Amino acid sequence: MISKKMKVLVENSSTIRAMFEEGKRLAKIHGEENVFDFSLGNPNVEPPETIKSSINKILNTEHPNLVHGYMNNSGYEAVRTKIADFINHKHNLDVTQNNIVMTCGAAGGLNIILKTLINPGDEVIVFAPFFGEYRNYVSNYDGELVIVPPDIETFEPNIEVLKEKITAKTKAVIINTPNNPTGVVYSEKAIKELAKTLLEKEEEFGTSIYLISDEPYREIVYDGIEVPYILKYYKNTFICYSYSKSLSLPGERIGYIVTNSKMDDFESVMSALNVANRILGFVNAPSLFQRVVADCIDAEVDVEIYKRNRDLLYNHLIELGFTCIKPEGAFYLFPRTPIENDIEFCQEAKKYNLLLVPGSGFGCPGHVRLAYCISYEKIKKSLAAFEKLAKATISK
Amino acid sequence: MISKKMKVLVENSSTIRAMFEEGKRLAKIHGEENVFDFSLGNPNVEPPETIKSSINKILNTEHPNLVHGYMNNSGYEAVRTKIADFINHKHNLDVTQNNIVMTCGAAGGLNIILKTLINPGDEVIVFAPFFGEYRNYVSNYDGELVIVPPDIETFEPNIEVLKEKITAKTKAVIINTPNNPTGVVYSEKAIKELAKTLLEKEEEFGTSIYLISDEPYREIVYDGIEVPYILKYYKNTFICYSYSKSLSLPGERIGYIVTNSKMDDFESVMSALNVANRILGFVNAPSLFQRVVADCIDAEVDVEIYKRNRDLLYNHLIELGFTCIKPEGAFYLFPRTPIENDIEFCQEAKKYNLLLVPGSGFGCPGHVRLAYCISYEKIKKSLAAFEKLAKATISK
Repeated sequence: MISKKMKVLVENSSTIRAMFEEGKRLAKIHGEENVFDFSLGNPNVEPPETIKSSINKILNTEHPNLVHGYMNNSGYEAVRTKIADFINHKHNLDVTQNNIVMTCGAAGGLNIILKTLINPGDEVIVFAPFFGEYRNYVSNYDGELVIVPPDIETFEPNIEVLKEKITAKTKAVIINTPNNPTGVVYSEKAIKELAKTLLEKEEEFGTSIYLISDEPYREIVYDGIEVPYILKYYKNTFICYSYSKSLSLPGERIGYIVTNSKMDDFESVMSALNVANRILGFVNAPSLFQRVVADCIDAEVDVEIYKRNRDLLYNHLIELGFTCIKPEGAFYLFPRTPIENDIEFCQEAKKYNLLLVPGSGFGCPGHVRLAYCISYEKIKKSLAAFEKLAKATISK
Repeated sequence: MISKKMKVLVENSSTIRAMFEEGKRLAKIHGEENVFDFSLGNPNVEPPETIKSSINKILNTEHPNLVHGYMNNSGYEAVRTKIADFINHKHNLDVTQNNIVMTCGAAGGLNIILKTLINPGDEVIVFAPFFGEYRNYVSNYDGELVIVPPDIETFEPNIEVLKEKITAKTKAVIINTPNNPTGVVYSEKAIKELAKTLLEKEEEFGTSIYLISDEPYREIVYDGIEVPYILKYYKNTFICYSYSKSLSLPGERIGYIVTNSKMDDFESVMSALNVANRILGFVNAPSLFQRVVADCIDAEVDVEIYKRNRDLLYNHLIELGFTCIKPEGAFYLFPRTPIENDIEFCQEAKKYNLLLVPGSGFGCPGHVRLAYCISYEKIKKSLAAFEKLAKATISK
C-alpha cells in the first residue's frame, strides 16, 4: 500500500541493505577484525575537543528554553552573523546573516533549495560521477535529472558536453567539490569555464540557471590545495555546507546554505528557503548544535589522519597495478575496475572480505569507491586482501 | 524564479510574517513588557534538569564518533528498544524497535509517513480545526486535503461527516489529540467510532486507510484526563510523537513514529519510512538527542505551570463573556470571536497589544487561538487588555 515512487526506492535500497547484511554475515564467519568495510563515508577522525567544552559552556551559561527552543526557521540570527563574518574573513566577501539559512546538514540544504526552485519537469544537471542521492532529491520535486557523462581521465566537469545538455528547461546544476566519489577538487579553471558557460546559456535562453555547490568535504583536503569558493565566480550560486565531515558530526545534522546577494530574485529565494525549511518538516536546524558550530567556528579535525590513510591505500593500489586518480580531497579513492563490470568486481572483492561500492551507483560504471575513513591499522591489515583481489582480476 | 508552488506559499507566509513585524513594531512603541504575544506555541516551561546531566553523562562516557556519528536511518537500535519498552510498559503493548523510526520531531515524522503513502491525487482527511501545516505537508506529496468541518460545540471529530467524505481515494486520516488549536482531548468513544468507521470503509472500498495520530501534546494534559493510545484501537495506525512539548525541546527536532505491527504491508511500510527519512534529507534524527531522550525516558516537564496559566486565562475570558471550551490538554485556548470575522477580531486585539491567531488558519473561522505557554505574570498583566477587547467586541 506504499506509494508507487516509494516502492521502487525500497526495492533499490534493498540491494544496498543486502550488501550490509552480507558484511554482517562475513563478520560472523571470519570475525569483525577480518572484514574490511570500505563502504561507508562515516568519519573515523574524532570531532575536535572543543565540541564537548562548547556544549558544556552553552548549557551552563544560557537559559535552557533559549538553547532548546524554537527560533526563526532560518536559524538564530547571532549564529548566522557569526558564520557570515567567518566566510567574509576567509574568502574576502560581504555576506550577512540574510544570505544564510541554517540547515539539517547538506542533505537538508539541497532539499530545501530544490523545493524552492523546481517545477515538475524542470531539469537539473549533474556531472558523473555524482553522489547517488542527488537522483532522489531531484525526484522528490518531480525534476528531471540530466547526467553529463564522466571524463574518466581527470574527473573534472565536462564543460563541452554541459553546453549540449543545457536547455530552456535547465533550472539548476549541482556540483560537488571536493568530489564524492572521486576525491577530485575541481580546478579554478574548470569553475571559471562552468560559470562562463552558465552565464552564456542564461543569456541564450533568457532564463536563470542556479549553480548548487554541495560542499561537505571543503575542509578535507591535502597537499595544501585550494578549493575555489564558488560564490565568487557566479552570482546565481547556492553553497550547501555541512559540518558532518569538517567537524565529524554527521549524526547531528547541522550545516547551512549561503547564497550570493546578487542572485536573481534574491529576496524571494531567501524567503522561500525559510518557508521550505518549515514545510518540509525540518522546521529548523537542531538548535543546540547551531550554537555549538558558531562557538567552534575555527575548529578543525585532524586531516593528516585521512592523508596518511590515503597515501597508504593509494600507493598500495598503484603498486598492485590499479589505475586511480590521486585524490586531493574527501576520503574516497575511485579506481577503475580491472574487469569491466564493477558489480561483479565488488562481488569478487567480497571473497577477500573487502566491502566496496560499485561506481554504477554514482553514474560511473567500470569504477569502484573505497571510503578510507577507517583506522590506519585496519587499512594496513586489508592490504593483503587487495593483493589477492589484484591477482584475481588484473590480467598480466 | 522560484517554483510556482513556493511562490504561493511565500506570499501566504508573508501575512504571518507581517504579524510578527507588527508585534516588533508594537514592542518598540509600547515596550516589550506591554505587548502580549499569545501567537506562538513555543514552550515556556523549562526542560527537566535531567536533560543537562544526561548530556554531560553521554559526552563523558561514550566515544564522540559514536555519539555524533551516522547510524541506521531509522535511529539507534538501543534507543528504539528503550522507547518500545517504555511504550509497552505504559500502554500494555508489545511493540519492538522494528515498530519505531526516530524522526526530526513530529513534523519530520508526518512528512516521511506522507512520502511513504501518498500517490498524487490520493486524499488525506483532516478534522477542522487542524494544525495549518497539514495542508502543506499533504501538498508536498501532491495529495488532496479533504476537510471535515468542525463540531464547534464539542470540537470532537465529526464521524457522520467523515463517513461521507471517505472515498476509494482516501489514503489517510490525520488526527491531533490533545488538539492544536482547541486543547480538546478526543474521547475514547470518538476514537472507537472513528476506528469502526475506517474499518467499515476499508471493507467497502477494498482499500487500506491509514490513521496518523499527531501527538506532540500527549503529556500536556490536566485534571487527570487519559489520552487514548490510538495504536490499541486500529491496526493501520501511525503515531507521530515528539519531545518538543513533553520535554520542552522544540528546537532540537527529536521525536519518533511508532506503528502497529498488524498494519497492512507492515514490512514494506517500515522499510519505506527508513528510506524516506534518508531521501527527504533528514537522513536521521539528531544523534545526541536520540540518546538524551532515551536516557531521560521517564522525565517530565511541570505541567502544573501550564494548568495555572489555563485556569487564569480561561476563567477570565468566561467572566468577560467569551464562549470557550475548557481545554483538557495542550497549551491553547480557542474561544469564539464575538464578531464574526476572526481576522478583524485579531486586528482589533492588536489595538490592545494582544497578538492572537485567527481560527481561519486552522480551518475554523469565527474563532481565535491563544497560546498560553508564556509566563503567568505576563498573562496576569494581559487581563486588562482582554477586558478592553471584550468591551469593544462583545455586544450587551
